[in-house]
Amino acid sequence: MSRVATGARPIDLRLAESALVGARTAAEPASFSDWFAEQSRRAWMRVERVPLDALVDWSADPHSGVIGHRSGRFFTIEGLDVRVADAPVDRWCQPIIHQPEVGILGILAKEFDGVLHFLMQAKAEPGNRNGLQLSPTVQATRSNYTRVHGGNSVPYLHYFQRPGSYRVIANVRQSEQGSWFWRKRNRNVVVEVTEDVELLDGFCWLTLASLHRLLAFDDLINMDSRTVLSCLPFAGEHVPYSGSSDFGAALARSCNPGAGSVHSTAELLGWVTEMRTRTDLRAARVPLTGLPDWHHADGAIVHDSGLFFEVIGVEVQAFGREVAHWRQPMFAVRETGLVAFVVRRIGGVLHVLVQARAEPGFVDEVELAPAVQCTPANHDYLPAAARPRHLDAVLGAPAGRVRFDTTLSEEGGRFYHARTRYLIVEDDGDTEIEYDRHRWMTLHQGAELLRHSYYFNIQARSLLACLHSVIGR
Amino acid sequence: MSRVATGARPIDLRLAESALVGARTAAEPASFSDWFAEQSRRAWMRVERVPLDALVDWSADPHSGVIGHRSGRFFTIEGLDVRVADAPVDRWCQPIIHQPEVGILGILAKEFDGVLHFLMQAKAEPGNRNGLQLSPTVQATRSNYTRVHGGNSVPYLHYFQRPGSYRVIANVRQSEQGSWFWRKRNRNVVVEVTEDVELLDGFCWLTLASLHRLLAFDDLINMDSRTVLSCLPFAGEHVPYSGSSDFGAALARSCNPGAGSVHSTAELLGWVTEMRTRTDLRAARVPLTGLPDWHHADGAIVHDSGLFFEVIGVEVQAFGREVAHWRQPMFAVRETGLVAFVVRRIGGVLHVLVQARAEPGFVDEVELAPAVQCTPANHDYLPAAARPRHLDAVLGAPAGRVRFDTTLSEEGGRFYHARTRYLIVEDDGDTEIEYDRHRWMTLHQGAELLRHSYYFNIQARSLLACLHSVIGR
Repeated sequence: MSRVATGARPIDLRLAESALVGARTAAEPASFSDWFAEQSRRAWMRVERVPLDALVDWSADPHSGVIGHRSGRFFTIEGLDVRVADAPVDRWCQPIIHQPEVGILGILAKEFDGVLHFLMQAKAEPGNRNGLQLSPTVQATRSNYTRVHGGNSVPYLHYFQRPGSYRVIANVRQSEQGSWFWRKRNRNVVVEVTEDVELLDGFCWLTLASLHRLLAFDDLINMDSRTVLSCLPFAGEHVPYSGSSDFGAALARSCNPGAGSVHSTAELLGWVTEMRTRTDLRAARVPLTGLPDWHHADGAIVHDSGLFFEVIGVEVQAFGREVAHWRQPMFAVRETGLVAFVVRRIGGVLHVLVQARAEPGFVDEVELAPAVQCTPANHDYLPAAARPRHLDAVLGAPAGRVRFDTTLSEEGGRFYHARTRYLIVEDDGDTEIEYDRHRWMTLHQGAELLRHSYYFNIQARSLLACLHSVIGR
Repeated sequence: MSRVATGARPIDLRLAESALVGARTAAEPASFSDWFAEQSRRAWMRVERVPLDALVDWSADPHSGVIGHRSGRFFTIEGLDVRVADAPVDRWCQPIIHQPEVGILGILAKEFDGVLHFLMQAKAEPGNRNGLQLSPTVQATRSNYTRVHGGNSVPYLHYFQRPGSYRVIANVRQSEQGSWFWRKRNRNVVVEVTEDVELLDGFCWLTLASLHRLLAFDDLINMDSRTVLSCLPFAGEHVPYSGSSDFGAALARSCNPGAGSVHSTAELLGWVTEMRTRTDLRAARVPLTGLPDWHHADGAIVHDSGLFFEVIGVEVQAFGREVAHWRQPMFAVRETGLVAFVVRRIGGVLHVLVQARAEPGFVDEVELAPAVQCTPANHDYLPAAARPRHLDAVLGAPAGRVRFDTTLSEEGGRFYHARTRYLIVEDDGDTEIEYDRHRWMTLHQGAELLRHSYYFNIQARSLLACLHSVIGR
């Protein structure tokens, strides 16, 4: 009785086929690297740091110090006062980005010769250290697409504004960095069309196999692409992966709901509820003026230790396809972060170790994070008890156990040169797990939870996309 | 590989058996009405309205007017400024209860002679118009159970503080009234034990069949009991209901995941995302002092129209089992609310019409609500366009189509004499549905969503418990 067309090939099978294509397809660029190099010649940005008080159109409220755009839209930078009971660091203050609008991160999908392709965009953003990165088809805030900034209309936007008219492959709201954003949510959406789609300059169609291959390059697939890819319903009973390695086979089995799991999904859900209930984190938005432990220096807002991040101003000039000029505040992150999945084969089925992690900006206190998520350099400042449990183990893992290791960028519209090393390490079965805050989970359980909001944080979602990319190797 | 004991009888079967028990069991009171009458003689409250400024331990902040307890715990009453784009009422201000603590609503379950029983409490609360109502085993805020109020310890609490040690039947955080609470969440939890449990005065074991029978009495099963009951995983493939009526059979089929549905669950989830994204509701906490359209009168805060609700003070004296005396603010609700499910048999499977409804206090903008949810008397004040679409249809339904009709109380700890008529009406198949904001859903789809937070609002959850109660009739 479901309205889904009967006889349609199941989506998990179609995604697997797209992930396992062996060669370039006719719809893809003849050479991705040539195409991307050409895009880089045709569109670029000049980004310079400027003092916060030199940001035309942006100003600090004279009382609270909150930094906002004169339109009242986009985002504000405010102060946050955080208290966490029973934590190694039980109180701190920090600037935070408040962006109440829910944006769209949308990828358009279409079959060419029976294989699903995804429409990606070579996009420059001011925070990118390397110019262009590969972004979703559409990456737009409400201010963007209602054109508060007076810019051009957003190409392909209409496919995502009423996706019910098309075949919806994924459509779910997810959080972003809970340490830097106050309750930010974006809609992650993948829509499949059968009609002809005009291929605009700066866009290209790629199979999942190509996207997976490109994920291994530093700073290429941007954060928004990674989160949307992670929401693809790749788990299912039709997954035909025949991993050539034992690891690949265990990964493929992990995608199959028929495979066993250490915990039932009901148990995992109850545990998430427990973790959320037991966490006593209180975060209050406070003035930026006089924020304890932070001060103004050289036109930026910096932590007294010099660590964590700075609030800076940038002046941006975009050239090429679009010519534009604006200034905006950003968070500048100096040190490279590290997030790592610890994975283990249990009964021949790959399991991922997830951590119930509280971040002050989460809508619901706790989300599932990688076993390691930190900025190693910051731990010079933080107490030893705050040192992540599995940090030394993943950094010291022998090369033969490292399944993925790439440094990727965080969102280039808000974060300046923020990079994170994404690492997936298979443990030797002996890692000592703190079972209170950690659980083993299969990929099919992960895919089930990803149909709903706020189970996996952005770092875990990025790593899920990375882990899935290994499947075809 | 799941740790759930193999060979255990499935929970949906055990719940069905408890719902279909034909007679009183040995573990239940010999006569529930005698037991309840006896409880009423042994515990009662005297509640008197007093002016807000006469509340010892509570005071209004001199600047903001926000009403809080001197301990800083429990809850505050603040102002809320709400804007909703494209709505018949697109801006209003109101007082709202801010209770950031996540409480526990817990029911203890245990088998007697192979049948699941649930431990319920006869509990007096100041807002109850009729003294005692039947509450969950434990109904406690964090302030409660950390004993900020200096009262007695909460009986049976330990079963719910580390439920992982027992068999967890349900454990999920859910919202409460989004029109009266700011982001209130409670943990709904059902834990099964096999050990002996001391039966304390004021408590009794009841089967689901008895609870379902008692749901038909006005103001007996309290709101907290209803929401916990709604989270029981009653849907499943083992549901053996053999409805004696066609309606009962359609209801039983609706609980079976093998039965068809108008929409796939993926479609429903995508639609919820759409509704959440499209809703542009902005609510800001503001001072209570000078709140537009509200004023102080006779020691209360009232709307200029005299409608909606009042913020009042009460003085409470509890006698009997416990002797206590306190004062507190409450929301007094004069007019009886109405919430109604419209249900329809489609392909022999019962479907419920749900409405994507925005309420200012929701964590995530929109939850699924009954097709009708309103206070009919308030519509004298509101514009005609705000009149609920199916209100006249459900009020005018012929008696033969009314499947449930009982007036029940809302939470007696915060709401004074707040009552709602809960109505379930089977439509004739001709109701004109506004498909944009409404969808048909089966009970097994509802049960799947109820494993997660914030899909169904408290009114819909109450009605789901009521609808399920019809199954054994």
